Amino acid sequence: MDHVFYPWSAQAGVHPVPVTGASGSWFWDAEGKRYLDFSSQLVNVNIGHQHPDVVAAIVAQAGTLTTISPTVGNEVRSELARLIVERAPGQLNRVLFTTGGAEAVEHAVRLARSYTGRTKMLSAYRSYHGGTGVAIGLTGEPRRWGAEPTNVDVIRFFGPYPYRSAWQCTTPEQETAAALRHLRQVIELEGPQHIAGLILESVVGTNGVLVPPPGYLAGVRELCDEFGIVYIADEVMAGFGRVGEWFAVQAFDVAPDLITFAKGVNSGYVPLGGVLIAERIAARYDDTVYPGGLTYAGHPLACAAGVASIGVFEREGILDHVRTVGSDVLGKGLRELASRHPSVGEVRGMGFFWALELVRDPQTREPLVPFAASGAAAEPMSRVTAAAKERGLWPFVAANRLQIAPPLTTSADELRTGMGILDEVLAVADSYVGESAAQ
Amino acid sequence: MDHVFYPWSAQAGVHPVPVTGASGSWFWDAEGKRYLDFSSQLVNVNIGHQHPDVVAAIVAQAGTLTTISPTVGNEVRSELARLIVERAPGQLNRVLFTTGGAEAVEHAVRLARSYTGRTKMLSAYRSYHGGTGVAIGLTGEPRRWGAEPTNVDVIRFFGPYPYRSAWQCTTPEQETAAALRHLRQVIELEGPQHIAGLILESVVGTNGVLVPPPGYLAGVRELCDEFGIVYIADEVMAGFGRVGEWFAVQAFDVAPDLITFAKGVNSGYVPLGGVLIAERIAARYDDTVYPGGLTYAGHPLACAAGVASIGVFEREGILDHVRTVGSDVLGKGLRELASRHPSVGEVRGMGFFWALELVRDPQTREPLVPFAASGAAAEPMSRVTAAAKERGLWPFVAANRLQIAPPLTTSADELRTGMGILDEVLAVADSYVGESAAQ
Ligand SMILES: Cc1ncc(COP(=O)(O)O)c(C=O)c1O
Ligand SMILES: Cc1ncc(COP(=O)(O)O)c(C=O)c1O
Repeated sequence: MDHVFYPWSAQAGVHPVPVTGASGSWFWDAEGKRYLDFSSQLVNVNIGHQHPDVVAAIVAQAGTLTTISPTVGNEVRSELARLIVERAPGQLNRVLFTTGGAEAVEHAVRLARSYTGRTKMLSAYRSYHGGTGVAIGLTGEPRRWGAEPTNVDVIRFFGPYPYRSAWQCTTPEQETAAALRHLRQVIELEGPQHIAGLILESVVGTNGVLVPPPGYLAGVRELCDEFGIVYIADEVMAGFGRVGEWFAVQAFDVAPDLITFAKGVNSGYVPLGGVLIAERIAARYDDTVYPGGLTYAGHPLACAAGVASIGVFEREGILDHVRTVGSDVLGKGLRELASRHPSVGEVRGMGFFWALELVRDPQTREPLVPFAASGAAAEPMSRVTAAAKERGLWPFVAANRLQIAPPLTTSADELRTGMGILDEVLAVADSYVGESAAQ
Repeated sequence: MDHVFYPWSAQAGVHPVPVTGASGSWFWDAEGKRYLDFSSQLVNVNIGHQHPDVVAAIVAQAGTLTTISPTVGNEVRSELARLIVERAPGQLNRVLFTTGGAEAVEHAVRLARSYTGRTKMLSAYRSYHGGTGVAIGLTGEPRRWGAEPTNVDVIRFFGPYPYRSAWQCTTPEQETAAALRHLRQVIELEGPQHIAGLILESVVGTNGVLVPPPGYLAGVRELCDEFGIVYIADEVMAGFGRVGEWFAVQAFDVAPDLITFAKGVNSGYVPLGGVLIAERIAARYDDTVYPGGLTYAGHPLACAAGVASIGVFEREGILDHVRTVGSDVLGKGLRELASRHPSVGEVRGMGFFWALELVRDPQTREPLVPFAASGAAAEPMSRVTAAAKERGLWPFVAANRLQIAPPLTTSADELRTGMGILDEVLAVADSYVGESAAQ
């Protein structure tokens, strides 16, 4: 009997592929079946599996000082903080380390609230911010339902989503304007003087790889400035190279007040996350105790993996690779696929972060499976997923979307191999086109 | 400049000792100054620093498969779950892994609420349960103040504390009876049908090493049974050998419904925590989705360290060592110290988990520093702490207490060395005796 209780699952339905090894863009199971990882696991293995330089750094650190309390000083922790700060936008120059994304979000909110003395938080529908108390309360997608009521004092707004505009807009420019008008109204109606912070995924991840249309993030920044609201960019998934920048906001020329990160910071080789903090906010805690912490804040083994990973990014020119190959090979290839598969309603993304939105009807845009579908209603997506896995492609599936998030070290040839498999897999989705789920 | 933002601190006051290495019960700083670790860092390095077997397991796992998603199967994760379950009391036979203590508490509460369909939680004053949304809300000590209002729907009760009884009791038996009567009244007045769970540190850790008097935990178990309340034992600090048992409840012959653990499970060599789940609760999620998770649930590197650590516990007979040396050397030695130092109001503890409660007056029991003291008011404790560190002893200091929690591998001789230093340090505390803080 397997005594593991699996997250986000009905336990009887868990028949996990027993993974025994991995390398680069591939992993394999006990029977030697190999999978091309188009999901970077949970979009965390940015540097690829088992990168020898990061493994070597872990081995070296483990031999020296694997763990030490966050209350003492530690060289590798300070070094990682410095490396991150040097790559950050704006005046973000202090780092509070955690063990993952949810705890980073928790601390970002703690900072926003204690800094402003206000309590309300703004977050977007179609967002994921983590599984702990405050983080799940901020989350704007179905996973929060099982934790409600969360009593987190959050107000949810609509972000831009041109393909399914909340305002019937038809151009990105209109969408930006409408979304900012909407956000301003929400702020005014909630009372800006009561709003501590706004949290937003710079590129919305699990909920659709929603790239913000031009001007949106800058507009959010301006609204936050106007009303004294702390702007938290959640880059747990989008940061550290996923879109070809250290931080995704840098693709949009915006500097938030806080950035939450995890995953790609060290590819999850050792659990790590954190919050990048603007000097103006950090300075508030020069003489005032910051009311938060955790045992494994700034864990040396995790930080050593982070330092090594940043070194690999530099030496291997990963950001460049993601920008060029991401658009010339991946983006182009996916668009070509879409042109031949009627089930692909939209292709969107940037860098190594893409989504194919699958529909039953390209005209009405009816999704391949209904919102928050489970069981039989979700079967078309289960079949698509199974078809991919059968063929040795490990996809990142969310709702009615095939999302594409390979390790950032994946070669152009490997991407083409994966898209070749996707070509076959999309035939399964195509078979539903024209057949409404409502019948 | 150090870009690290330190938890639970005013940043300008942080002048951390730069630790560069560690071994067994000792660690040292950049200048080669050595410290005997009487705190096991944050009471997590149960197996001692840099244990070669655990380091070797990390190195081996790093070379094979350092990370993999919690949605796939992984041998070392399943093995650790099995090893933990085999050592657990009662019907606790499933493990949900997290990266630390707070997230373990978050999931325990998620389970209690979703299993019962109720929302209220009971927790004790003088408790610490972690820094994230729900965990800090459950916390019953001053660290939660900076996060309030937490809106967690928690009701706090008083646990037994014979030295400062909430009910003027003078014997442990009276204290148990009074504490259980109090708890029953709170449950009745809150409406048992609205109470999802009760969370309790089996031996209260940071808030005083409060060992429950005979019959208390059994009484709590009975009340929870009577009212259908999920009993969560928080053993993040007390579990994995700290009191000479795998789980502290085993010293009191009680089986809770959920046990939260972290720290000692792998000595924090890699961030890890989790929830042990009673079969009856786990079974509820056979066909229902458990609404919670995190990216690094069941991280292979962390689990490998856990498997190795349990092996070391067995081979080195650590539980036996803790039980015998804990009472014959540590407990005895501390009592002997107390008999000669008027500032020691009470010595209490078990295994390798002890507290010296420091007072200004053994009669009135006025604490050496007032409750929740900071700044100048806390100076006596700062001086005591500094005196210990000067002499190369790293203490675990909380409020008016010197707490003693050495690695479980610390030898009798090392313990005697540490107590020799304590003897000198207590002279500093003695100098305040008879001098009231109120003057
Ligand atoms: C944007 C975002 N924020 C937060 C989280 C939570 O991170 P973790 O699972 O490490 O707690 C995730 C996880 O997928 C995420 O994508
Ligand atoms: C009893 C108890 N529960 C929970 C926690 C929180 O654990 P972590 O700091 O790993 O989140 C602690 C930490 O000291 C603890 O002592």
